[in-house]
Amino acid sequence: MTKTLDATHDAALQSWVASANRADADFPIQNLPYGRFRRAGSQEPWRIGVAIGDQILDLKAAAGQGTWPADVAALLAPLAEGDLNALMAQGSAARRTLRAALSQALREGSPQQSALAGALVPQAAAEMAVPCRIGDYTDFYTGIHHATTVGKLFRPDNPLLPNYKWVPIGYHGRVSSIGVSGQRFKRPLGQTAGSPETQGVPKFGPCARLDYELEMGVFVGTGNAQGEPMTMAQADDDWFGMVLLNDWSARDVQAWEYQPLGPFLSKSFASTLSPWVVTQEALAPFRQPFTRPEGDPQPLPHLDSAANRERGALGITIEVWLQTPSMAAPERLSSGNTSDAYWTVAQMLAHHSSNGCNLQPGDLLGTGTLSGPTPAQAGSLLELTMGGKQPITLANGETRTFLQDGDTVILRAFAEAPGARRVGFGDCAGTVLGQSAG
Amino acid sequence: MTKTLDATHDAALQSWVASANRADADFPIQNLPYGRFRRAGSQEPWRIGVAIGDQILDLKAAAGQGTWPADVAALLAPLAEGDLNALMAQGSAARRTLRAALSQALREGSPQQSALAGALVPQAAAEMAVPCRIGDYTDFYTGIHHATTVGKLFRPDNPLLPNYKWVPIGYHGRVSSIGVSGQRFKRPLGQTAGSPETQGVPKFGPCARLDYELEMGVFVGTGNAQGEPMTMAQADDDWFGMVLLNDWSARDVQAWEYQPLGPFLSKSFASTLSPWVVTQEALAPFRQPFTRPEGDPQPLPHLDSAANRERGALGITIEVWLQTPSMAAPERLSSGNTSDAYWTVAQMLAHHSSNGCNLQPGDLLGTGTLSGPTPAQAGSLLELTMGGKQPITLANGETRTFLQDGDTVILRAFAEAPGARRVGFGDCAGTVLGQSAG
Repeated sequence: MTKTLDATHDAALQSWVASANRADADFPIQNLPYGRFRRAGSQEPWRIGVAIGDQILDLKAAAGQGTWPADVAALLAPLAEGDLNALMAQGSAARRTLRAALSQALREGSPQQSALAGALVPQAAAEMAVPCRIGDYTDFYTGIHHATTVGKLFRPDNPLLPNYKWVPIGYHGRVSSIGVSGQRFKRPLGQTAGSPETQGVPKFGPCARLDYELEMGVFVGTGNAQGEPMTMAQADDDWFGMVLLNDWSARDVQAWEYQPLGPFLSKSFASTLSPWVVTQEALAPFRQPFTRPEGDPQPLPHLDSAANRERGALGITIEVWLQTPSMAAPERLSSGNTSDAYWTVAQMLAHHSSNGCNLQPGDLLGTGTLSGPTPAQAGSLLELTMGGKQPITLANGETRTFLQDGDTVILRAFAEAPGARRVGFGDCAGTVLGQSAG
Repeated sequence: MTKTLDATHDAALQSWVASANRADADFPIQNLPYGRFRRAGSQEPWRIGVAIGDQILDLKAAAGQGTWPADVAALLAPLAEGDLNALMAQGSAARRTLRAALSQALREGSPQQSALAGALVPQAAAEMAVPCRIGDYTDFYTGIHHATTVGKLFRPDNPLLPNYKWVPIGYHGRVSSIGVSGQRFKRPLGQTAGSPETQGVPKFGPCARLDYELEMGVFVGTGNAQGEPMTMAQADDDWFGMVLLNDWSARDVQAWEYQPLGPFLSKSFASTLSPWVVTQEALAPFRQPFTRPEGDPQPLPHLDSAANRERGALGITIEVWLQTPSMAAPERLSSGNTSDAYWTVAQMLAHHSSNGCNLQPGDLLGTGTLSGPTPAQAGSLLELTMGGKQPITLANGETRTFLQDGDTVILRAFAEAPGARRVGFGDCAGTVLGQSAG
């Protein structure tokens, strides 16, 4: 499980796609994330592309060039048809083979440049789809600072439950309403608790406490057969890559519905992903030691390994930006880091499969809201506004407790490390529409 | 939404498939449920068939006969390819058109008998698959007697939470591990709470309190677009049909993991469906008034309709049978009725879509465990044994608190009503294997 770096990670590598070489590019040649796209407004078939600078290498066009070794051509064939799950199912060796080939093809001086120059599509001219077929979506709760702060709001006497430090808490989420960056959805209707004014009768109407949640989403690679749990080593090798995930939440609905079976309609109206799947290999330079705070229990053996302790955590900066209808540009609300997660990606997969549950290629695992220890690092408005009690004031003088119609929330993420090229995730944007939206 | 009966419901109708005419047949000509099958042990493509007596009308073979009107032939085409979702997506008019055509074709004296006689496959010679592509699986909690009894075990002071009589409580379930009758799965491993003997450290090992749950599963028909909730009338018209559902549950794992986000690994290792989808139309004669007990609140307006009050409930007898390795035949453990559900199928769909969540053809909605008001009507061992404190004694002298390796649980269901032909669901069987099973 040693996550050794190879030639594709060389920070000095440059691409013949000039925009990839800018210092602030999200998609330098060291990244090479996959997304599903077509030309905006066209009826073209969806296909998989690789983001490079401000361009997309169209793998359908690229596969047709015939300049690939046979093993690479075989991996490109399903991608040309828009099927990313097929690559996910092939496992880590295939991921690395294709990454090496794409890195060779796109680097400065590549003999493939002239053949592939015509296979570029500007990102600005493309529309994106959810990157793969998601069979099941599970949302974890690995943000201990979020769990503690929210726990205080829901259960003042009992914020962090006794299982939290032993069990990577998670629950099943809704697949059908997952969309990609640019998703626009109506403010959900929902049932909320009654009050003395309503003689205790619950109300049904538009959500009054609509929130975002800043999460990362992890795509499963090959997965596991039913009844055959993954070891920690298998789990760490298996996961395909990551995206940003906004787990929109109706807090008033959640508070009334969530006992005893967990959140349901408070979450299932919409969830938004960033379109580019940043692979495990692209994130290898940003792995960090995984440690538990002094005095906290060590994970049980099936959720522990030396490799996980040495390199199981990830250092990715994650940010929330808000653009209200009266703003010319978005404003940053918070910034945190994935290294604050209480459980690693490998632990999420190992736990999920530990009962024999079969994970499948393209299954999506959310990390849960990743808030940092300080208030400015909070990944939701529920936390930033102390449950709506302390509105935040924006630079233009507007205030917010929860989201208003027309608000656009943009999640962003990037990773930096000494000696490594910065890689980014692109935007994960979503907009709340009024109930009367057509 | 008047659920009028038509010629296909005539209790006097007989089929030219003689076994369908037995008084105790699950699949008389008044039923006509759909399932996905192929000849056992073959590599034939899966296709949709209709159960009739002890036979299957192979819709691939039948579609090839050319004796169907054009509109019926168009509906049969995807079924011949094994795609039941396509029919689900067509809505209730298509369901009724096809039902009428199949009823005509299979009834005594049909001119199609000679053409279709060769399209029969004995059920005993077939293997079945999950009947459709399930996008999302949601499990509700409509069994108020189950909720109350289990609530007492988990929360003695607070058995039925304040939201129960207002909100059709539900949660997302796991799709990948759903199997069809005959499913055999290893006893799940899982984490359970620590004890004084373990110095409070949780344990990880085989589940010691493995249980079944007696539920019905409902398949969504056309569903709804994101952001466009279904009305009660749309919801009641939309649902395609029902199966039996065993929501296997690891009670010790559940007790430790379920707060605050609900059951997860305690359920996701396996769920078993009966193979034949009994359509809404076949169940029309068994609709009943839906009433709330004296003093209970009436549903909020979006979950209420005159039609739902008049005919929203269903009267289906549901049974649990157990066969241990030393039994020659299964023994019945309990018997209940779906009319004990606190929420109707239409209310489940209307609630689920009320926040704008899009339901899709083939989505599966479980009712939750349907226990009756008396102990003998309990739909789980947790209830039958008072949380494992009072073992049940079987006819052969064996006792059970929870399931042992090798135990097979069989769910059965049938509906009867004055003037109507009895229809049944067939068996929903599943077997617990030891951890060492290969």
